Amino acid sequence: MKKGLLIVLSGPSGSGKGTVRAEVMRRQPFAFSVSATTRLPREGERDGVDYHFITREQFEKRIQEGDMLEYTEYNGNYYGTPLKEALAEINAGRNIFLEIEVEGAMNVKRAYPEAVLIMLLPPSFSEQERRLRGRGTESDEVIQGRLDRTHEEMSFFPQYDYVVYNEDINACADDILSVVRAETCSVKRYPTAHISYFDT
Amino acid sequence: MKKGLLIVLSGPSGSGKGTVRAEVMRRQPFAFSVSATTRLPREGERDGVDYHFITREQFEKRIQEGDMLEYTEYNGNYYGTPLKEALAEINAGRNIFLEIEVEGAMNVKRAYPEAVLIMLLPPSFSEQERRLRGRGTESDEVIQGRLDRTHEEMSFFPQYDYVVYNEDINACADDILSVVRAETCSVKRYPTAHISYFDT
Repeated sequence: MKKGLLIVLSGPSGSGKGTVRAEVMRRQPFAFSVSATTRLPREGERDGVDYHFITREQFEKRIQEGDMLEYTEYNGNYYGTPLKEALAEINAGRNIFLEIEVEGAMNVKRAYPEAVLIMLLPPSFSEQERRLRGRGTESDEVIQGRLDRTHEEMSFFPQYDYVVYNEDINACADDILSVVRAETCSVKRYPTAHISYFDT
Repeated sequence: MKKGLLIVLSGPSGSGKGTVRAEVMRRQPFAFSVSATTRLPREGERDGVDYHFITREQFEKRIQEGDMLEYTEYNGNYYGTPLKEALAEINAGRNIFLEIEVEGAMNVKRAYPEAVLIMLLPPSFSEQERRLRGRGTESDEVIQGRLDRTHEEMSFFPQYDYVVYNEDINACADDILSVVRAETCSVKRYPTAHISYFDT
């Protein structure tokens, strides 16, 4: 059984990673790994289906035990991807796609070095600024904060495997799905794939 | 200017590499690098267009000087790809596609380590044998020779970057063009691509 891929997409504010992710998902199914969270279930949400609803204590214990592939804290609640669940999908030959920020991606790479890290960038920094200002929903200060943060995020760039520039959503999805397809053919990734050739 | 890629496709007898190459070329243009040969020009063939027609002495001198990316001898004549010409295309940002046998591919990798080596294989060894026998044009001895040679060729397999199994020509062309597209996004291949991001 050929292992699946763990694909991680990151990108600075204004890179369009949410839209690109949606287009990738629309074109090709990826395995779904149920996230864990410490927030309370909303009406209709089911434990183990929508989320694994666990306590703060349980979540922090799993972080310490290295069982969170990546996690983030938002509005006082933790959200994360349990490592064991993700590995179960990968070992069953299914691909997982995570859209997470740079720090999370670095955690994933540490926990699972075979992960494929893709950085999505706007076509240029000036275009990134133009896009952020074009939204018209954020103050100059917030926008400047996002642009400053891009400098920090880019310091992790050399640890990414691929970079995709978002001029066009379809072209980005083509790039990302080409990476998935190419990695599936990689000899280094599957170094023993040929050994059985003569037995078949 | 982003350098182009040097893509090398090899495959044992019966892998269908000629057909797959034609399908790849039909879908996407690659730069054409004029080969050199020691055979005499045929009616209508022009020097520098169809081939660089050179003498045996000149050819051997270029081999010794490391100026043949790869070459082969066939029917008493040399055929080869001049390194300088191929590099001129690559440096101008154009991709080159060579379909050559394993030994030639190893020469290319030595002369130009950034080359992307793709091995095309039949779906299985028994299928390879079935395809070779199905041609009905070769003696058992010749077929056995081709199958024996596959064992030798496969010893170079770990030096290839990608492997594609030929069950279907369209799927093979998709795989190969995905490799081309993914390599174009590779951070390791273009490690300085992002440095200018904030200047743009």
